[in-house]
Amino acid sequence: MVTAAILITGNEVLSGRTQDKNVQYIAKRLMEMGIGLKEVRIVRDDYGAIIGAVNELRSSYTYVFTTGGIGPTHDDITAEAMSRAFGVKLVENQEASLILKDYYQEKFNENRARMAMMPEGATLIYNSISKAPGFRMENVFCMAGIPSIMQDMFESLSHTLEKDAPFIEGCVTCNLLEGKFSNKLQGIQAQNPKVEIGSYPRYEPFVGASLVVKGTDKTCVDTAIEEIRKMIKDLQGEIIDLP
Amino acid sequence: MVTAAILITGNEVLSGRTQDKNVQYIAKRLMEMGIGLKEVRIVRDDYGAIIGAVNELRSSYTYVFTTGGIGPTHDDITAEAMSRAFGVKLVENQEASLILKDYYQEKFNENRARMAMMPEGATLIYNSISKAPGFRMENVFCMAGIPSIMQDMFESLSHTLEKDAPFIEGCVTCNLLEGKFSNKLQGIQAQNPKVEIGSYPRYEPFVGASLVVKGTDKTCVDTAIEEIRKMIKDLQGEIIDLP
Repeated sequence: MVTAAILITGNEVLSGRTQDKNVQYIAKRLMEMGIGLKEVRIVRDDYGAIIGAVNELRSSYTYVFTTGGIGPTHDDITAEAMSRAFGVKLVENQEASLILKDYYQEKFNENRARMAMMPEGATLIYNSISKAPGFRMENVFCMAGIPSIMQDMFESLSHTLEKDAPFIEGCVTCNLLEGKFSNKLQGIQAQNPKVEIGSYPRYEPFVGASLVVKGTDKTCVDTAIEEIRKMIKDLQGEIIDLP
Repeated sequence: MVTAAILITGNEVLSGRTQDKNVQYIAKRLMEMGIGLKEVRIVRDDYGAIIGAVNELRSSYTYVFTTGGIGPTHDDITAEAMSRAFGVKLVENQEASLILKDYYQEKFNENRARMAMMPEGATLIYNSISKAPGFRMENVFCMAGIPSIMQDMFESLSHTLEKDAPFIEGCVTCNLLEGKFSNKLQGIQAQNPKVEIGSYPRYEPFVGASLVVKGTDKTCVDTAIEEIRKMIKDLQGEIIDLP
């Protein structure tokens, strides 16, 4: 099974200043590719925190995607943290230098040159918006933190990923409280071990629950969805069509 | 220094179905209380994943806040995971039982009774919305995943937290690209070691950067902000007042 983790380096997320939007984008795209996102970590812009997390994650999962910390300022430390994590030198990436010089022309300076410093052996991840490239080291992909640029980078690297059978999700929403059906739902989960059933209570704009079935086999997902619909009707619940 | 981590148990976040909103709320509140949020982890609704993460986090930080997994369905496994993590029995919490029986009256059933099963020694975290309580085990606070209920629980427990000097943040936004000022900003950071300066590029609706200064001493924050404003003017940049 192909698996993944996301590592967000983000003081601005940990201070509550910024609402992260990268996890949801990457998560949805990985679902479509059949890559199982198993874990997300948000850590401080701190060498120890980043190195510790990336070394744990890259040995546990097929892929690690990092976001943030690849710009030209003093708090952009992802490239150096990765070179320390991988035990390689931080060197000028010639291709990145050429891209940045071509883009900034006479505005190219020592600050911008910093964005071409990458771990030795890194390959570039391109983006069409800011031009400043991300990079890949083995199974770790380091991308920008700004959502539009991160998405551009993700799409430019996605063809290189090993894919698996895409996950299929079905969802039934009803007006029943979880406490009304949880024993029966547990029975349906036990009878359908090839799918994963999640139950998510709702309070607004109505009280009820959404039951989500996830799997890689469409027939198995459809069967579990049918059993859930029958359970809801048997309990005199109503199925609610969400827009 | 008082520190914290957040642990989100959430298949629905890892599949991209749900956009997490709990991190930002807790992060902002901790800032106000002077509690340093150091790390966030989002893991699967899986015993091994939850137990491993909570045991690492609770030994590393003053407090751990978990969200999700305390309802009545088969995928709500936080209470049992915590009892295994702490090496104690999962038992009926008498006070939780009374609250749930009183709330559900004749609709109290074995499904709802499951929500009163907690690690031995847990104390309750109340909420006024769904009544189903969260719980505290030592330095770990287990709360609901639904934002409105989580917030209610957080406010009901916040008075029990050890607080520190509140963090103060200042922010200056300008129309300069980071590559124009990053060396000078690094100098300001070096001259002002009592504050932490973050730089966040902007692409919409204008190109520029926001410079954020964080610290516990207002004079130190103000001094760094003044130096940043001067740096921007010296570089012929414009300071932009955000609404």
